[in-house]
Amino acid sequence: MGEFELIERFFKRTASRNPLGVGDDCALLAPAPGMQLAVSTDMLVEGRHFLSTVDPSALGHKALAVNLSDLAACGATPLAFSLALALPRVDESWLEGFSRGLFALADAHGCELVGGDTTQGPLNICISVFGEVPAGQALLRSGARAGDDIYVSGTLGDARLALEVFRGRLSVAADVFEAARIRMEQPTPRVGLGQALRGIATSAIDVSDGLAGDLGHVLRQSGLGARVETTAAMGLLAAAADSGAGAGVLSTETRLELVLAGGDDYELVFTAPASAREAIQAAAAASKTPVTRIGRTEAEPGLRLVDAQGTLLQRRYTSFDHFA
Amino acid sequence: MGEFELIERFFKRTASRNPLGVGDDCALLAPAPGMQLAVSTDMLVEGRHFLSTVDPSALGHKALAVNLSDLAACGATPLAFSLALALPRVDESWLEGFSRGLFALADAHGCELVGGDTTQGPLNICISVFGEVPAGQALLRSGARAGDDIYVSGTLGDARLALEVFRGRLSVAADVFEAARIRMEQPTPRVGLGQALRGIATSAIDVSDGLAGDLGHVLRQSGLGARVETTAAMGLLAAAADSGAGAGVLSTETRLELVLAGGDDYELVFTAPASAREAIQAAAAASKTPVTRIGRTEAEPGLRLVDAQGTLLQRRYTSFDHFA
Repeated sequence: MGEFELIERFFKRTASRNPLGVGDDCALLAPAPGMQLAVSTDMLVEGRHFLSTVDPSALGHKALAVNLSDLAACGATPLAFSLALALPRVDESWLEGFSRGLFALADAHGCELVGGDTTQGPLNICISVFGEVPAGQALLRSGARAGDDIYVSGTLGDARLALEVFRGRLSVAADVFEAARIRMEQPTPRVGLGQALRGIATSAIDVSDGLAGDLGHVLRQSGLGARVETTAAMGLLAAAADSGAGAGVLSTETRLELVLAGGDDYELVFTAPASAREAIQAAAAASKTPVTRIGRTEAEPGLRLVDAQGTLLQRRYTSFDHFA
Repeated sequence: MGEFELIERFFKRTASRNPLGVGDDCALLAPAPGMQLAVSTDMLVEGRHFLSTVDPSALGHKALAVNLSDLAACGATPLAFSLALALPRVDESWLEGFSRGLFALADAHGCELVGGDTTQGPLNICISVFGEVPAGQALLRSGARAGDDIYVSGTLGDARLALEVFRGRLSVAADVFEAARIRMEQPTPRVGLGQALRGIATSAIDVSDGLAGDLGHVLRQSGLGARVETTAAMGLLAAAADSGAGAGVLSTETRLELVLAGGDDYELVFTAPASAREAIQAAAAASKTPVTRIGRTEAEPGLRLVDAQGTLLQRRYTSFDHFA
């Protein structure tokens, strides 16, 4: 199967929302009047971002999900995406699964594939995603104000928990592992929540490198510090600790490490003034996305972590760095 | 050096034309009222699209040039680009050269880097480029009409000539090789010409896989055939044949092969009615881009190649296929 047949068979669809899709030198997008175009690009490399054994359908889902998560963090509505794919060889069964997972998520968000590139090379998936947001209403990292509440969607640390079990470094009950594996392989981009937070949240970011690092970006770009307590955002980690199996392994320290520096969560961390608490709960309910308040920004720079008793933790957590 | 320092040092610049550049979850682009956004993505893989020995500055140029060439083929004006880069390791000297070549071309076209991704992995460069074009005026592959003239910018076959000399399969005079090598490593995207052809050309495509294949896309999508004679578009190939050195190797057959199926030219092939000949010459002059008329479209499907004497050539040429 050649390059053009491959595209025709697995990736070509007629664009309906966008003026021009796959099949010309460029795709054409037309944001509605008064809207800006939000653009984000993520590259996934085998062995670095996913294991070679991952189900191709889950990989198709995840490759788009991590990009949609960036749109969510800006409060943008998905419009379209482009896909560049380097493949070692044409594997029809892999392509069938990959494209199925990819399009299932794309269709769920009305996000059309409008172009891209296909080439031979070590497995590499590069997606650029395009969304629209009313001019001036994008949620930025730089908008937090001192005294804002800090929230996180969903739960943190689940994906990294699954990875550490895969690596044999942690062990948990089978049902907890299965739930964590789904969180690692098929993260849920919080697209609905991001849109619902427009005009309410003062800043937002998606957690891809771990809460400490990503919240750190917001604090630096907003010129602030924060005091944070994460116990309430430990969903599966709390379950794992309670389940008996591996409870001894999942120490408080390990759970904090997974929550703060785990990465691959694709949850939103965002800030809003205390006066917006009801509006935040309404946005969470409207988008069917659980949201937890985990702290407050402060004028003094730095991220101060406290335990459930309010005691300051001494240990520092750093974010995932691809070259560290 | 970590991921964020790498971005900060080699790739971070303040966006001025676009509302939001590098440093948030998304970039924000705002096409002017009445404009559509043209988007194209190309992925370059080491060993497939470039040799590991290539000068990093030339590679930075080429990675963006092949994308700008797609904008040119749509008649779009460059606005911005995103860069996703997988690197085996942080090599400061390589990054310095690569970013220098990349930004030199970007600056020449007022095209801002607005975002992207950096990760560890086999060397892979994935660029998405964004341009704007008045709604309804993009040059498409599907717009050619029977009886249109067919033109090509610049000359064809030069890049492939250089590649074949590199591979030791052809030999040419040193000055011809040097000129061909520059054409292979630092192609000139015909951005000015593409914009000048808006409202004049009926269709356009950029030649990346070879004239036969790429003109074939235009003909198929326009429901047409064509009669083409390429002697006048053989710039360096004609020089090589005339130079004595290797003249015996560069047979008519070889020259045709390089021109029709060479690839990596990044010239524009476009169509226009005979009534537009003066306008085409004016567009070529205004954009300082040489343009040659090489044939005419016909209602009968298929690409018919004729030699300088008008005799039909029997041999068929196919385009470059990454998986063939």
